[in-house]
Amino acid sequence: MTKPTREKWEKEFSRWFDWILEEAELYDYGRYPVKGMGVWRPYGFQIRRRIIELIREILDKRGHEEVLFPILIPELLLRKEKEHVKGFEDEVYWVTHGGLEPLDVKLALRPTSETSITYMETFWLKSYRQLPKKYYQVVSIFRYETKATRPLIRLREVTTFKEAHTVHDTFEDAERQVLEAIESYKEFFDRLGIPYLISRRPEWDKFAGALYTIAFDTIMPDGRTLQIGTAHNLGQNFTKAFDFKIQLADESLDYPWQTSYGISDRVVATIVSLHGDDNGLVLPPNIAPVQVVVIPIPARTDEDKRLVKEFLSSVVNVLEELKLRYRVDDREELRPGAKFYYWDARGVPIRIEVGAREAKEGKVTLVRRDTLEKEQVSLEELATKIVELMDDIFNNIKDRAWEHLRKRVLRTSNIEEAKEWISARRGVVEIPWCGREECAVHLEDELEAKALGSPWPLEKAGDEDTCPVCGRKAITWMRYAKSY
Amino acid sequence: MTKPTREKWEKEFSRWFDWILEEAELYDYGRYPVKGMGVWRPYGFQIRRRIIELIREILDKRGHEEVLFPILIPELLLRKEKEHVKGFEDEVYWVTHGGLEPLDVKLALRPTSETSITYMETFWLKSYRQLPKKYYQVVSIFRYETKATRPLIRLREVTTFKEAHTVHDTFEDAERQVLEAIESYKEFFDRLGIPYLISRRPEWDKFAGALYTIAFDTIMPDGRTLQIGTAHNLGQNFTKAFDFKIQLADESLDYPWQTSYGISDRVVATIVSLHGDDNGLVLPPNIAPVQVVVIPIPARTDEDKRLVKEFLSSVVNVLEELKLRYRVDDREELRPGAKFYYWDARGVPIRIEVGAREAKEGKVTLVRRDTLEKEQVSLEELATKIVELMDDIFNNIKDRAWEHLRKRVLRTSNIEEAKEWISARRGVVEIPWCGREECAVHLEDELEAKALGSPWPLEKAGDEDTCPVCGRKAITWMRYAKSY
Repeated sequence: MTKPTREKWEKEFSRWFDWILEEAELYDYGRYPVKGMGVWRPYGFQIRRRIIELIREILDKRGHEEVLFPILIPELLLRKEKEHVKGFEDEVYWVTHGGLEPLDVKLALRPTSETSITYMETFWLKSYRQLPKKYYQVVSIFRYETKATRPLIRLREVTTFKEAHTVHDTFEDAERQVLEAIESYKEFFDRLGIPYLISRRPEWDKFAGALYTIAFDTIMPDGRTLQIGTAHNLGQNFTKAFDFKIQLADESLDYPWQTSYGISDRVVATIVSLHGDDNGLVLPPNIAPVQVVVIPIPARTDEDKRLVKEFLSSVVNVLEELKLRYRVDDREELRPGAKFYYWDARGVPIRIEVGAREAKEGKVTLVRRDTLEKEQVSLEELATKIVELMDDIFNNIKDRAWEHLRKRVLRTSNIEEAKEWISARRGVVEIPWCGREECAVHLEDELEAKALGSPWPLEKAGDEDTCPVCGRKAITWMRYAKSY
Repeated sequence: MTKPTREKWEKEFSRWFDWILEEAELYDYGRYPVKGMGVWRPYGFQIRRRIIELIREILDKRGHEEVLFPILIPELLLRKEKEHVKGFEDEVYWVTHGGLEPLDVKLALRPTSETSITYMETFWLKSYRQLPKKYYQVVSIFRYETKATRPLIRLREVTTFKEAHTVHDTFEDAERQVLEAIESYKEFFDRLGIPYLISRRPEWDKFAGALYTIAFDTIMPDGRTLQIGTAHNLGQNFTKAFDFKIQLADESLDYPWQTSYGISDRVVATIVSLHGDDNGLVLPPNIAPVQVVVIPIPARTDEDKRLVKEFLSSVVNVLEELKLRYRVDDREELRPGAKFYYWDARGVPIRIEVGAREAKEGKVTLVRRDTLEKEQVSLEELATKIVELMDDIFNNIKDRAWEHLRKRVLRTSNIEEAKEWISARRGVVEIPWCGREECAVHLEDELEAKALGSPWPLEKAGDEDTCPVCGRKAITWMRYAKSY
């Protein structure tokens, strides 16, 4: 009946996060003997798998086609687009030997796949009739990160990188595709209950090789922002570098236009972090590996045992009919309390307790994970109630997460107030901006924060708003935050 | 109405195979600028994806848990088990640099994961109560092959390596697990209609670090065998090397027992190769990305066009109700004949043709891909007929493939006959064997073939059978073949 607390979750977020990854057996980090790389354990893997299925569904219905490219990219290919390689060369892992011999050509572990995909597109795509073409893959990428690594947040092997790559015959169609990508990601995050801010990244922080970058950020319990998705308009940068031309409707040849957009393991990190509480995970029902756990309460007499067992099988029938992912936890070595703790940590949305008293009354006790509220439900109502409850839980955790995010965004032109907000790890500040890089960089220094970019779609600043650095009239807002 | 031929398929298999990978847009090989690595294109990817789903279903129902380990293994870990590293060290790719700096420790691109998985098991598994434990992952592995590479058959990046790794408290339970693995693989290949020979690999050709290896081979159209699955009893070799002990029921500590078993991209190669014909792929309906293709035959009059369109939507309703994966090919730029060619090459099991004449009669023309037989079916019968036909097609291609395999196995003790069989690329010979390595190696040289091992389960040779090399009494048979 006690409402679960979120104190440790918020105040000691970093420790809480490490604790829950281990406690719920999600992702083993720190013991694998390569820095920045970890192991997906079975329970974590099942969450990850359902997230991948969700993104596939969303992309497939918008006409994307899944492909799989090699992990290794030859050095020359990676170096074709100059800005791109500059952005990545400090963090590329290089394969230099096969067996005991040195290789003729150094091979990069892909940091992202614009170069290899564009290269193959030159063979596959010849005519505007084939466009737009939308490819994607879900793969591991590698970054030799020099910043401090964090499990699922800043890894050297990102194991769940969904990267989409599209080709278009006009700039306008590439622009439309960026909007479609944003719509896809909104749908994706909405269906996971993850709140976000959408920003157009500053020029000096866009993807290496892009015209511009639109990014999704969320705000973690410790007030730091986390980039969880990006969409890039690549213009003709890569198609020119690879001399990739197509035939247009008027029979002329020209370089096509491209976009790319990606999400990563960080999606899992946000589901863990934004929905959790002091007891552990709270999973959205659609991706929970176990949606309902049934816990028999041990009976004393043989007659009661028989009753519980019988009643249990009626309950299981209901779950079967609903086609839910359920588990009956009949482990004899554990008491009910230990089982509650175990499944609460794993975030199972609904718990059903069945004891002798319940069996006699033809009722079960239902407990919802998000609030830990209990109620008695008759066997007849059980199916309806479970379906309702799963919706309720999802809406509740989604609303709660959005509320958390909204409370953490402050719009102000008062630099002192902004400074305090940032230093107290409250979250994001939005400050009127004149549009000049030097003013934003100045504020980054003063606030000890990172400029995330301007709200997207573009929000015009008010007529009265001025840039607090230079005093010029503001054209929009710039977001600043401590960020991962 | 013409029965499809299998002449090119058999006589020019190697060229046919390269042709169909490109023609059906399965796997782009040879253009990607790293030798031995290729790209899964959308159509091939969908076949591969369904194969992975099938193996997951089969392993999950037998209590396996899916995990995901890093691609990189530090040198020291890989070197822990001496026999193992000896077997792989000539073909390991090494990562030596991160960014511009040399790494402190060389990292291997995993050739297989016994070492990294055993290492993590030492943290996860402490007691016999947790056993048996069955993990698996579906990942890319890397082998710097010195033999000639072939798409999907001998790759340097094997992109679809399903490796299972299990832990047991007794030798007997590990033995039972090897049998379970064999049963799982039988089910897997049976559900794809792929025929196989099961052999116990010779001592000198077992997996590096195993007590013994049981292997599945199939016979390709050119008479060469292809290893398509293996199961290894690893004994305590890796648990001892990693000093991995568990508590047994009597509270003593001991090294547990392990098995591992794997399949690869070669599964796709066999589906392509064993079921195909001169027109291209012939896919088993359960994994076909498109199970039914509907091709409207262009009508001349407006009235006829209307009729076809109307009738088409009734046909589509039937396919929707059956929940099939179907495609209506209404591309205007292609004639029906070109569409037939296109979908035949892609192996779509059933084609439905709808023209004005059919529409008027309330019938469609059904064409089955395996035999190209046509029949007229009324709309009322369509659903039943399609379901029947999919079964028929599957059984037919499965039977045909098994027949092909059986015809290619010769049991003989006549070396001349065996030699001819092998040199004419007929397939496999089974020769009585005394059990001594030197006799088998002698025959490998004489036959210019590879010893695949003895039939599994063990078949005793007859009382009269003698080893044709040394003349001693034979204890079993040894299989020899040209192999990939």
